[in-house]
Amino acid sequence: MKEKTIAVDLGGTRVRVAISNRELTLAGRIEEKTDLSGGADGAIEQIVRLVRRSTQAAGVDLSQIGRLAIATPGPLNTRLGIVYTPPNLREWGDLPLRDRLEERLSVPVTIANDANVAGLGEYFYGAGRGTGTMVYLTVSTGIGGAVVVEGKLLEGASGTAGEIGHMTIDRHGPICACGNVGCLEMLASGTAIGRIFQQGLDAGEPSVACQWLQGRDATAADCARAAALEDAFAAAVFLDAAEALGTGVVNCVHIFNPDLVVLGGGVTRAGALLFDPVRRVVERYTMAVPLGAVRIVPAELGEDVGLVGAAALARAELAGERR
Amino acid sequence: MKEKTIAVDLGGTRVRVAISNRELTLAGRIEEKTDLSGGADGAIEQIVRLVRRSTQAAGVDLSQIGRLAIATPGPLNTRLGIVYTPPNLREWGDLPLRDRLEERLSVPVTIANDANVAGLGEYFYGAGRGTGTMVYLTVSTGIGGAVVVEGKLLEGASGTAGEIGHMTIDRHGPICACGNVGCLEMLASGTAIGRIFQQGLDAGEPSVACQWLQGRDATAADCARAAALEDAFAAAVFLDAAEALGTGVVNCVHIFNPDLVVLGGGVTRAGALLFDPVRRVVERYTMAVPLGAVRIVPAELGEDVGLVGAAALARAELAGERR
Repeated sequence: MKEKTIAVDLGGTRVRVAISNRELTLAGRIEEKTDLSGGADGAIEQIVRLVRRSTQAAGVDLSQIGRLAIATPGPLNTRLGIVYTPPNLREWGDLPLRDRLEERLSVPVTIANDANVAGLGEYFYGAGRGTGTMVYLTVSTGIGGAVVVEGKLLEGASGTAGEIGHMTIDRHGPICACGNVGCLEMLASGTAIGRIFQQGLDAGEPSVACQWLQGRDATAADCARAAALEDAFAAAVFLDAAEALGTGVVNCVHIFNPDLVVLGGGVTRAGALLFDPVRRVVERYTMAVPLGAVRIVPAELGEDVGLVGAAALARAELAGERR
Repeated sequence: MKEKTIAVDLGGTRVRVAISNRELTLAGRIEEKTDLSGGADGAIEQIVRLVRRSTQAAGVDLSQIGRLAIATPGPLNTRLGIVYTPPNLREWGDLPLRDRLEERLSVPVTIANDANVAGLGEYFYGAGRGTGTMVYLTVSTGIGGAVVVEGKLLEGASGTAGEIGHMTIDRHGPICACGNVGCLEMLASGTAIGRIFQQGLDAGEPSVACQWLQGRDATAADCARAAALEDAFAAAVFLDAAEALGTGVVNCVHIFNPDLVVLGGGVTRAGALLFDPVRRVVERYTMAVPLGAVRIVPAELGEDVGLVGAAALARAELAGERR
């Protein structure tokens, strides 16, 4: 029985690979900076090389591997195994990632959106353990999402379900990079916070952040740091973004009636500055019955959330085959 | 084996009861105007009386009944079997509908939100037959919703999942009766269309509808009728509501990546006047992969959608018990 699996977390910055057993203990963990110099071919070569090193380090042969699951930036079609020109990896074009890896490694491959994979990781091994319905949002460069119901990821017809960041919450709002209007991501992602903060500074808003920015563009972290120093403009920008995120969470609570909403991603490092307004908005605007059922908590898994989630996904696929 | 079930559709206007077999053929179908004079007790008595008449008409004894499923206006908690003060039936208070009916009829009872039940009906016996992920929206007095994934209704922690009408799509919009801001229901329900149209008429907007309204308040049907006569103001009001509904559908397509979105309820009788702008908005603002997977179609079941859905729910519960 091929009980072992390979977990791969392919990010725009880092690639991580590990070997997992049935209990999702990771072995042969290895990571590298993502090779962006060689296009799609370079990335495939890098993954293949890291998989070989990882199996070797774990003392496992490819013949013992039942499945490889890989988390990758979207958009993608999990059914077809294709990644469509990731915004941060444009030179890839449309990449049949599943088939390319299966050709090279001769193991069955599953591809999935990175936020979906992270959501699965949190559900089984992080903040979501023991819940029935969990909504996961990662607030970072963009806003990714995942919904897990009774242990099963909502995937939809082509595997793109969970694009909660591209939910319109302001129908008269700004156009998003995805083409939609007033998306949550345009109002509450790290990129949005940095952009809105910088636009204000450019327009002459006074802020303590000017002391350390020295002419470089502000980020969400700069905005959060200035807000924590009680800088009025930074606090207002961060608060509006957090309240927009709160509105996104209200929508999720009305739509899914979850036990748990897990917030992860770099922007959640702001802590109470983010969580307090989110919880306030949810308490004020959510209907009583679903409000009574839900808790809003930070993600628990750190940088290995993608690896753990990929291992969980690979195991679920193996279990499905044997059913 | 208790193979028969009882389906009840309890509305603010009509109560319908029928007996179903495993194939969901309905027998002993009976309906009455909802008795609103006797409060919750009166409604319970009416249901019990109609159930007895329906079983008699179908030639079935209560001892052959495996389960009764009842569709009721929300909000409610399906796990606890409680209906919380329906907006249109306020004198009921919080009603333990499940336990009250079980006491009187000695059969196991399942309660569910009317929109959820209608969604199940469309999935198994209407427009949704054969789909994987279906989103159902009923656009009527309010906007109700249901999501069915691989034959299973999304219920959430307390059975309130699917409140798509109470998703904020305009965070700077009007306050909804539910307490939330800029809900889809506030912008695109039949009530909203009638209200916005009437407000314009009150403010002196010229409209052909004034010819037939004769001082009574306008409804969504009046707005649709005037718009079909190329009345400029009515057309603008109806178009804005249809586009708001389109935004709600875009959100559902991004969140669920469904095969199918089914639109039902009285407002959909406007036909192309509603469906054309909805489809235009969806085509313009939805990301390519989920857009390629989805069709938007009218509901197929008529006034018996609640009975058919309740029968499907009762059957699903019976099947669950025997698993």
